[in-house]
Amino acid sequence: MVEPSGTGRVEEVVMCRWLAYSGEPLRPAELILDTQHSLVAQSLNSPLGAETVNGDGFGFGWYPTDPSPDAVPGIFHSIEPAWHNENLRDLTNTITSPMFLAHVRAAAGPPIQQTNCHPFRHENWLFMHNGFLEGFHLMQRDLRYAVDPSLYPSIVGTTDSETLFYLALTFGLQDDPIAALGRALRFVEETGEKHGVSAPVQGTYAVADGKTLWAFRYSTSHHSRTLFHSAAIPELREMFPDVERLEVFGEHAKVVVSEPLNDTPGAFITVPESTVAVLDESGYHHEPFLADAEAVLTPA
Amino acid sequence: MVEPSGTGRVEEVVMCRWLAYSGEPLRPAELILDTQHSLVAQSLNSPLGAETVNGDGFGFGWYPTDPSPDAVPGIFHSIEPAWHNENLRDLTNTITSPMFLAHVRAAAGPPIQQTNCHPFRHENWLFMHNGFLEGFHLMQRDLRYAVDPSLYPSIVGTTDSETLFYLALTFGLQDDPIAALGRALRFVEETGEKHGVSAPVQGTYAVADGKTLWAFRYSTSHHSRTLFHSAAIPELREMFPDVERLEVFGEHAKVVVSEPLNDTPGAFITVPESTVAVLDESGYHHEPFLADAEAVLTPA
Amino acid sequence: MVEPSGTGRVEEVVMCRWLAYSGEPLRPAELILDTQHSLVAQSLNSPLGAETVNGDGFGFGWYPTDPSPDAVPGIFHSIEPAWHNENLRDLTNTITSPMFLAHVRAAAGPPIQQTNCHPFRHENWLFMHNGFLEGFHLMQRDLRYAVDPSLYPSIVGTTDSETLFYLALTFGLQDDPIAALGRALRFVEETGEKHGVSAPVQGTYAVADGKTLWAFRYSTSHHSRTLFHSAAIPELREMFPDVERLEVFGEHAKVVVSEPLNDTPGAFITVPESTVAVLDESGYHHEPFLADAEAVLTPA
Amino acid sequence: MVEPSGTGRVEEVVMCRWLAYSGEPLRPAELILDTQHSLVAQSLNSPLGAETVNGDGFGFGWYPTDPSPDAVPGIFHSIEPAWHNENLRDLTNTITSPMFLAHVRAAAGPPIQQTNCHPFRHENWLFMHNGFLEGFHLMQRDLRYAVDPSLYPSIVGTTDSETLFYLALTFGLQDDPIAALGRALRFVEETGEKHGVSAPVQGTYAVADGKTLWAFRYSTSHHSRTLFHSAAIPELREMFPDVERLEVFGEHAKVVVSEPLNDTPGAFITVPESTVAVLDESGYHHEPFLADAEAVLTPA
Repeated sequence: MVEPSGTGRVEEVVMCRWLAYSGEPLRPAELILDTQHSLVAQSLNSPLGAETVNGDGFGFGWYPTDPSPDAVPGIFHSIEPAWHNENLRDLTNTITSPMFLAHVRAAAGPPIQQTNCHPFRHENWLFMHNGFLEGFHLMQRDLRYAVDPSLYPSIVGTTDSETLFYLALTFGLQDDPIAALGRALRFVEETGEKHGVSAPVQGTYAVADGKTLWAFRYSTSHHSRTLFHSAAIPELREMFPDVERLEVFGEHAKVVVSEPLNDTPGAFITVPESTVAVLDESGYHHEPFLADAEAVLTPA
Repeated sequence: MVEPSGTGRVEEVVMCRWLAYSGEPLRPAELILDTQHSLVAQSLNSPLGAETVNGDGFGFGWYPTDPSPDAVPGIFHSIEPAWHNENLRDLTNTITSPMFLAHVRAAAGPPIQQTNCHPFRHENWLFMHNGFLEGFHLMQRDLRYAVDPSLYPSIVGTTDSETLFYLALTFGLQDDPIAALGRALRFVEETGEKHGVSAPVQGTYAVADGKTLWAFRYSTSHHSRTLFHSAAIPELREMFPDVERLEVFGEHAKVVVSEPLNDTPGAFITVPESTVAVLDESGYHHEPFLADAEAVLTPA
Repeated sequence: MVEPSGTGRVEEVVMCRWLAYSGEPLRPAELILDTQHSLVAQSLNSPLGAETVNGDGFGFGWYPTDPSPDAVPGIFHSIEPAWHNENLRDLTNTITSPMFLAHVRAAAGPPIQQTNCHPFRHENWLFMHNGFLEGFHLMQRDLRYAVDPSLYPSIVGTTDSETLFYLALTFGLQDDPIAALGRALRFVEETGEKHGVSAPVQGTYAVADGKTLWAFRYSTSHHSRTLFHSAAIPELREMFPDVERLEVFGEHAKVVVSEPLNDTPGAFITVPESTVAVLDESGYHHEPFLADAEAVLTPA
Repeated sequence: MVEPSGTGRVEEVVMCRWLAYSGEPLRPAELILDTQHSLVAQSLNSPLGAETVNGDGFGFGWYPTDPSPDAVPGIFHSIEPAWHNENLRDLTNTITSPMFLAHVRAAAGPPIQQTNCHPFRHENWLFMHNGFLEGFHLMQRDLRYAVDPSLYPSIVGTTDSETLFYLALTFGLQDDPIAALGRALRFVEETGEKHGVSAPVQGTYAVADGKTLWAFRYSTSHHSRTLFHSAAIPELREMFPDVERLEVFGEHAKVVVSEPLNDTPGAFITVPESTVAVLDESGYHHEPFLADAEAVLTPA
């Protein structure tokens, strides 16, 4: 619950909402603005969310439909609430994209600034997080000092999520995203232990490189926030039987969401705890992620 | 209910929250940030409000404690949500003021811009509104053309509230606030009738000149949003018996609010429908406002 | 010269810079960010400009490369200076567009808000202005009241330029852009005369519908700000002989600018005073515009 | 010179302008908005400045005239250019303050965010910087890791200046500002040497605690940007002989500026290189600061 304290500050650690799409080029507004529980609608009122309002900025990252060979994805960040942003509306209605990520933020505290908005980008990689690192205040100095010195100056915000992204990059995200994010989360858990934080990791995570989308669900306490994705397109069409604009969805369209975009029973598949869903042109599959308690890594 | 439509636009007419203080010089943060249901807390979650979130900008206007003879009140407007605004926090913690007005906005629609934030100012006068002019889209051209041509260029926003303020100024607000706002609202009702709008006026209104505070409650349908004010200081102290900082309130402190600032039963007095509360150093009194049913021009 | 007065207010009427492109789909950053005197470079330092800094917001409007049948152009407006806007950089680097317009603003005065940023949009039409309506303060009430009542509620900003656009729409811009803008400017001149303003019109104007681009240069005093456009692509290639990225320009690429984008002599063709340049796929031609003193129209 | 590169990024390290006041309570607008070369005028055009435009945000910090015992100074930060900020105008016209600091920023690069705006605050201390740490990109990880771990989480921006402030706090700024800033600058020079940076320190620095104002001028190369302050009030009155509002200045009024506020010869006293000016109620004096050439660690 977002509960301003007596000083008016938001003291509680709170969370966000995110959405990622992979498939045939699509106007992002179809998912971000135009569904029953679109991400922008969720920014005002989130049925499953830990807090009602996700109004502390937003971000949208997209891979272009016809990229130049060395193209990086575009990012649009804003500290305004998503629900009244005219630029976001125009942008997501005018472009098409075969892979995009969007995020609405409910900040655990100031500062509200564009450098704290998801998704975060490094070269052609994007990263988003819904959740938090418990005790980040205590751990951040250690965590950031573990980031590769060549990457360190690229950390420009104050969030736990951005530091986690740079730890994962340090541990090889661009070579093996699943192993690297796993090592990064284990490193956070070890660092937390040193500082007396018992359950430092909580969340769902999206990683994308323009071809593949990885959607992770993991928490130290094995009780993570919700994560869903749509299945192959027949199910998706079944989901939205009466919506004419569904014709724009292609055969490979898949969407990953922190909350379902509509109330149709069975329309969205739950990603289980301690699991990563891997989605690309060929379809999707689930893999265990940090699920073996014995297999805890101890990165240097 | 704030309900983004299929296009993501907020279509419904929605409302705001406001607060006004008159009395001994006070740090405004005492009322804006630091009470149980402070205005900033209400911006995230409004118990009595028509909508949950008042996140579409805010405004704060204050008369300085030691004004220069020709001093106009200061205004701080922002399109950001009030709940995370560090500048508002610092400003209201650092200054003192014998009369201030604050407003959090839930916009009926774009544009979200500082010129649409309350309070509005003309010379030493401030004005705020919680409510709306139904059918303003149809009436605005007629209403604005009725504004005194010398005042017309000062209208810089797009809200119904600002136009209403300039109508009231045209009708003599600076000479007789009660009569002038009454004439302005009647003019809106007449204009609505021409355009087939049956109940054009809805709301509560605050007017201040630095010495006196007028708080109005009136709607064409005689079913206005809530309005309350605190009584003399003994009641106020009774309201907050356990709050040490109440010591900062002086004998003449009075606060007018669209929602009570705490849950203490009886702490706040309701301003009845079709009534204006007049508050100044000498105390307060209520007067009927547009209350004569015979004189009503056009409500359905 | 932008000269803050003793009160710190910018009192002088000042001007802006703009750029428009028509041709094969292009990454807009090629012209907006990447040339010697790109629009963003001009926002900090404008060699031919009336003022050094164009830092009071900017706008970018673009027609998508693969529009849906009923597509309107996208718009990105911001009140920040263009030179440090990361979102503008990402957007113009990631998309392509066969026709786009960009504008950096040096405001004659507050308010600085997105609704005062060019280009302005109505359905599939875009409009930009570099210049001003002298005495707009005196004329604005008359000018706005002459706007078609059905269009009136769409005026959401405070600029002379937006009001001029809605006058031109009222006079038939969508049917005959040249005649309609001519009538609108004549109407401004007549209105100015009534208010004792001797030379009310000053500027260059861009109008676009997604297929054709009209670039006007006209002032009451026949001494308008500069306007240029590039010729057919052979000249354009001659202009940038050493720039490898010129390979991205297609055979039909044309750019209209308030200032040349480089110092190459002869690279840009001057649009003469009282002239409109019409640019589309087939090439370009110039026509006289309000050039016949006898032919002054008197719209109702 | 602010020179956007081919990518549109501002590559050159650039500088800022600042102003600090100590004396009888004063409306800050008198110095920030209302003089011939006021700080806001300098934000658009800076006669002595290294760059023309200081439009990348601003900050204003003030100690209240009647502070509560534990009062911290207020801060107003904005990423907008100072020259059109209505909130700054209202704030500095409405309050009075016996000590205030103001800063306009010309950023060496993104991000432009409030957490990168000066002055920086820790408890009752304020800090501003005009200049830069050369090679900060290389040094920042080492510099930040040298900050006291209990202070580390308070670093929320990305600037060299903020890191320098926290180093000075680590080295005892609150006990001995002159010694502590000296140690911090020496530490930066040592760190620069390790990274092959020959002249890492450049700038002028303001430190305030609400009672005393310290204004430093020091660079590794002994060639710092300009710094001036006004003398006792008789000189100040002599400076502005025709300005009626000078009557508001009290006997103890002193202002420190990176550029003189008017063109009157002799009105402002230069603070010499490697010197700190100490200003309080009793007057002012100069002390050498890092002036011992033998002790210089690393300049070229």
